Amino acid sequence: MTVGADKDYPSEATGPALETVNKHAADSDIVLFGSWFCPFVQRVWVAAEYLGISYKANEVDPYQKPKELVELSHKGLVPALRLNSFSPPRALNESTVIMDYLEDLASTTTKRSLFPPSTDAYARALVRLQADHISRTLVPAFYRYLQSQDQQAQIDHGKEFVDTLEHLASLFERAEREVGGTGMWKEGGELGYADAMVGPWIFRANNVLTHYRGFEMPQTPKFSAWVQRLLEHPAFRCTCSTDDIYVQAYLRYASNRPNTSQVANAINSGRALP
Amino acid sequence: MTVGADKDYPSEATGPALETVNKHAADSDIVLFGSWFCPFVQRVWVAAEYLGISYKANEVDPYQKPKELVELSHKGLVPALRLNSFSPPRALNESTVIMDYLEDLASTTTKRSLFPPSTDAYARALVRLQADHISRTLVPAFYRYLQSQDQQAQIDHGKEFVDTLEHLASLFERAEREVGGTGMWKEGGELGYADAMVGPWIFRANNVLTHYRGFEMPQTPKFSAWVQRLLEHPAFRCTCSTDDIYVQAYLRYASNRPNTSQVANAINSGRALP
Repeated sequence: MTVGADKDYPSEATGPALETVNKHAADSDIVLFGSWFCPFVQRVWVAAEYLGISYKANEVDPYQKPKELVELSHKGLVPALRLNSFSPPRALNESTVIMDYLEDLASTTTKRSLFPPSTDAYARALVRLQADHISRTLVPAFYRYLQSQDQQAQIDHGKEFVDTLEHLASLFERAEREVGGTGMWKEGGELGYADAMVGPWIFRANNVLTHYRGFEMPQTPKFSAWVQRLLEHPAFRCTCSTDDIYVQAYLRYASNRPNTSQVANAINSGRALP
Repeated sequence: MTVGADKDYPSEATGPALETVNKHAADSDIVLFGSWFCPFVQRVWVAAEYLGISYKANEVDPYQKPKELVELSHKGLVPALRLNSFSPPRALNESTVIMDYLEDLASTTTKRSLFPPSTDAYARALVRLQADHISRTLVPAFYRYLQSQDQQAQIDHGKEFVDTLEHLASLFERAEREVGGTGMWKEGGELGYADAMVGPWIFRANNVLTHYRGFEMPQTPKFSAWVQRLLEHPAFRCTCSTDDIYVQAYLRYASNRPNTSQVANAINSGRALP
């Protein structure tokens, strides 16, 4: 379904993500306002699924923000949580803040965790180093690459993006060497905080960057095996729509249309991501 | 003492900070590599003092990086921790990662904490929202203001910096309204994570920005009272040198000299902070 002349991709999830949305249609103490194509939403969604947190999925169109979203988030950004257990309901924004909130909730309810145990402060610090690299370096590099139009800029920013993936791999290797591994980098490992943090961009590198930039993932066996484990993990897989609609949705980024999103504008102006 | 033609400020802390360095001269499982003028170091230092973590203070000159610092940090950045309890010793970098590491360590040793209790996930999320605003918006705005040379840019960036302080105040107000307060914003509150995160820039706004930019802090009674409580808190105060040497050290930022620091270069090129 298409909405408006400037938007030529579906307003709804497809495939496994649509099934998951439909499973989470009932009212709940936690309402997740999200948009199927948004990777910042997807990382929160993966965390909620992995941690076993009950939630209602509320799909919104950020280009036609519903009033109830603007009430939750002064920037009108997704992801946003509405917490109905408070009266009046409260709101939370910012994907990393929401992930940490879900982690804290799970620690007293489902007892699941995306982190090494609290007794291993050093292993937890290694995970936070990974997450810090993803937020501050890898994610901005993804957008610079996807939005660059000039051929030389695409070459330069493509190389820069690969560098950030290789640095992430080196941080995972360090964790394997020093604490026996974190997350899914090591065969047999469980989904971890950094996997959930970065997964949505790995997925979009695979479909969107491959389509628009001829991108190839690093081909080392360990990197390829990690990507495969990550994308096939049930908590990740169930938040994915079909590849074709990501390619449609990201055309506006790949052609760097004005006002594609607050993220795209920040990249174009050299400011930090919103 | 002056070192080199390009550096015209002391290599050592003065005042309360020097006393604290001298108290922490003995070997310890944790060695904090820091430089007295660096605010990213100071936030870690405040956290270590508040949490009661044992550490050795190792003052280094980041313009003449000692070999043992470069071994710890590939970027040669401070703050860096060397953890001697591991064999061979391990390293940690990034100020926020180190703060979280110290918080985790304290949870099993001194039982002190910069956060609301883990049973109050929502209050903890409000603190993380404050921290996220400080890292991504307030701190970069401080440097854009201090480094701007053109008069109109100084006016614009000064206003932008004040906006970030007022937004922080609004986040503190929200926490007071919704969860009875976090950190020291409310009279009688204890030092919190966001206080430690932002304190070094509040302190430098008071001395460096006032000196070089004629800056005035927001004058509302609650903001002024918070600033006073924060700067006088023993865990903060004991990490402060005397005002005069900050003014000396920040001349290179205020005149935007080339290669002042990796932080200054990032601001000049519109990239995220290192």
